[in-house]
Amino acid sequence: MSVAASMSGFPEWLPEGQFVERHVLRVLAEVFELHGFVPLETRSVETLGTLVQKGETDKEIYALRRLHAADEQGDSGLGLHFDLTVPFARYVRENAGKLVFPFRRYQIQKAWRGERPQDGRYREFLQADIDVVARGELPPHFESELPIVAAEALGRLPIPPVTIQVNNRKVVEGFFRGIGFAGEVMAAFRTLDKLHKIGHEMVGEQLQALGATTAQAEACLSLAGIKSRDVSFVSRVRDLGVSDVLLDEGLAELANVIANGRAAGVGSLEVDLSIMRGLDYYTGTVYETVMEGFETLGSVCSGGRYDDLVGEGEESYPGIGLSIGVTRILGPLLARGSVGATRVSPACVLVAVQSEERRSRSDEVAAALRSRGVPSEVSPDASKYGRQIRHAERRGIPFVWFPGEGGDEVRDIRSGEQSAADAASWMPPSDDLGVRVTVGG
Amino acid sequence: MSVAASMSGFPEWLPEGQFVERHVLRVLAEVFELHGFVPLETRSVETLGTLVQKGETDKEIYALRRLHAADEQGDSGLGLHFDLTVPFARYVRENAGKLVFPFRRYQIQKAWRGERPQDGRYREFLQADIDVVARGELPPHFESELPIVAAEALGRLPIPPVTIQVNNRKVVEGFFRGIGFAGEVMAAFRTLDKLHKIGHEMVGEQLQALGATTAQAEACLSLAGIKSRDVSFVSRVRDLGVSDVLLDEGLAELANVIANGRAAGVGSLEVDLSIMRGLDYYTGTVYETVMEGFETLGSVCSGGRYDDLVGEGEESYPGIGLSIGVTRILGPLLARGSVGATRVSPACVLVAVQSEERRSRSDEVAAALRSRGVPSEVSPDASKYGRQIRHAERRGIPFVWFPGEGGDEVRDIRSGEQSAADAASWMPPSDDLGVRVTVGG
Repeated sequence: MSVAASMSGFPEWLPEGQFVERHVLRVLAEVFELHGFVPLETRSVETLGTLVQKGETDKEIYALRRLHAADEQGDSGLGLHFDLTVPFARYVRENAGKLVFPFRRYQIQKAWRGERPQDGRYREFLQADIDVVARGELPPHFESELPIVAAEALGRLPIPPVTIQVNNRKVVEGFFRGIGFAGEVMAAFRTLDKLHKIGHEMVGEQLQALGATTAQAEACLSLAGIKSRDVSFVSRVRDLGVSDVLLDEGLAELANVIANGRAAGVGSLEVDLSIMRGLDYYTGTVYETVMEGFETLGSVCSGGRYDDLVGEGEESYPGIGLSIGVTRILGPLLARGSVGATRVSPACVLVAVQSEERRSRSDEVAAALRSRGVPSEVSPDASKYGRQIRHAERRGIPFVWFPGEGGDEVRDIRSGEQSAADAASWMPPSDDLGVRVTVGG
Repeated sequence: MSVAASMSGFPEWLPEGQFVERHVLRVLAEVFELHGFVPLETRSVETLGTLVQKGETDKEIYALRRLHAADEQGDSGLGLHFDLTVPFARYVRENAGKLVFPFRRYQIQKAWRGERPQDGRYREFLQADIDVVARGELPPHFESELPIVAAEALGRLPIPPVTIQVNNRKVVEGFFRGIGFAGEVMAAFRTLDKLHKIGHEMVGEQLQALGATTAQAEACLSLAGIKSRDVSFVSRVRDLGVSDVLLDEGLAELANVIANGRAAGVGSLEVDLSIMRGLDYYTGTVYETVMEGFETLGSVCSGGRYDDLVGEGEESYPGIGLSIGVTRILGPLLARGSVGATRVSPACVLVAVQSEERRSRSDEVAAALRSRGVPSEVSPDASKYGRQIRHAERRGIPFVWFPGEGGDEVRDIRSGEQSAADAASWMPPSDDLGVRVTVGG
């Protein structure tokens, strides 16, 4: 039982779910740090001016008002961030002179969206972002490196397998050019993005409404139909007989991403030329991620290559970022019970108390165990041992320790096996030391 | 350099400070889990009704308004929590049937206060709370256990020594009774709480204004002057010649806290009968904590024993809680440079790249190192080795790895020492593996 009854859109977990979430966050941080990403936590608020920049006004924002101030002083001019990119961009802008570029950072924080309660969407959720941002020039190999890091991180989580789908704006834009499509490119991106929702035929019609000929619309749909887990997509695009310099560049970049991913042993990368989301913002490779069995959730890890994070001043800050939707992934898994924890207490040992007068003896045992890294709790009361064992049982604490006159004993309460033990040296099996996350069910 | 220039009241750290903060949070979580505390993270928002309960209206609250909604629909009826106790109480109330009591939890989260910007106070800050809450009866030994856990946690942080000052409401209230003070007890608590600010004389006068005789006021001031790190405070109170059942009970409880703390080897506990904060809410032991050299900061870890967390329904939920002000502690230490980090990248090794064509060779080295837990970054470009070494230097990455035809070499760039190495087996000295936090300066 992992999910608490709470306010719609503001998920909250019971202890079991709390352990799962902590485990997930620890694994993500560990993988990101292994790859040299610097931890970053920004403040939760930005000025409303920063939040509504760059056409982001479609995002629902929670503005902050000081409750106890007179009305005209109450509006703070601040709002909660709705993603981790806007605060990261502001942080880089403010601190550019003190950071070392290319700057690799990961950021695991909550974000908020002021959705209407009845929409059933998350209004508070955890994101885990990685970005590499350069000053001036960004080497292209980062477009391979970031999805490899994300794949490794996602692959180590207790979740179903994922597929990271990649596309490249240059491929699509170059293809449009190559076929001589004269309509509005962004509108065509948005139309093709609806392919999985509204289908082949309607997308074809809408492309024609944007000015495409029947043949051009067909060509676009053929392009969007191409998928592969290796570089074979290149020849399939070539077979469509379209030629353009930008297209060539995009295909080469995309081929590199797939080839480097395969070289790194990452099997979850797939070229999917129907991926169009964010092509108005991203300028090179784009990424989306589906989780097996949870396709209707939408993307659980998205991002892409952008030309300028900061968008101010003389220098440009190109970068690549990927954002993992931690709450989006965990919410349904916890609700279905597909992931859980071996116990609902971090304690591995409950030290029993013979009588309140002898509590200090039990405290000493617990202290000795903790000093060697064994999480231990002392029984809250000196009730009958049966009751104390029950206290451990209800929390899934596997061992109960009995301090004794002639020597101590420890019992594995799952098997009932009990044996002599010394708090200065006893260790539990490593599987029992910490709370483990379990999958399935 | 740890502190970023940011918005007043919303602290933000540069990478060095980020490492320090992460280290502090990891240590706290580790100690709390060693003691069997369950991790808990609640949502950041509560209904305004929950937030302004119980006379807490003096707290400055940030209310949330949906920016894009029509005015009358914009007010969400929600606000950001201003501490971690209110959300914990609400969580326990909502989930009491699914929790196991006594419930031990720790909670490390941000809280917000809608202070006026010009006040220079934190408007967003990190707290780390531990609480034990029972259903029905709470065993008294927890009043010793919690400060022991807090002392252990604070003692493992890279901060100056602290003193946890303890008092007990029963001592003060019983003493008032014993001397026959007929005035308003809460008002007298508040007056005595100002002792360190306004001094002996003025407090005496104000107590008399509350109805105390000169002798009673003097007695109160004598009581508030008692401090000790052992149980000698008991006889000093006795020497004041006041007798009361509640006083006796309080003295016994306080003596237990000190005696148990000493038995656990905790030297930082001190009875200080002038500690009055929170005596209106707390019903037994109260705790405040001063950090050496930072006395003007006020308390960095406060709490106490309360009778009912939930305050609703038939059952009561007595508990004890302590709250560590993480931002309050770290803010001034980071600003003064009293604490720092050995480097500003988690990477221990930078793998050099001989040429872009051979980048995959460097990627393989980094993957091999990471697979054994060595954080590694591959050079962003294949520039001259001198430049690549400079890339490592600027981040404090201690080792640069050179993949070679005949075999690899690794250089400690601090000493310049270079030797042959195999990515399948090489390990750095353990001190260099992760970023370490440094003290002093």
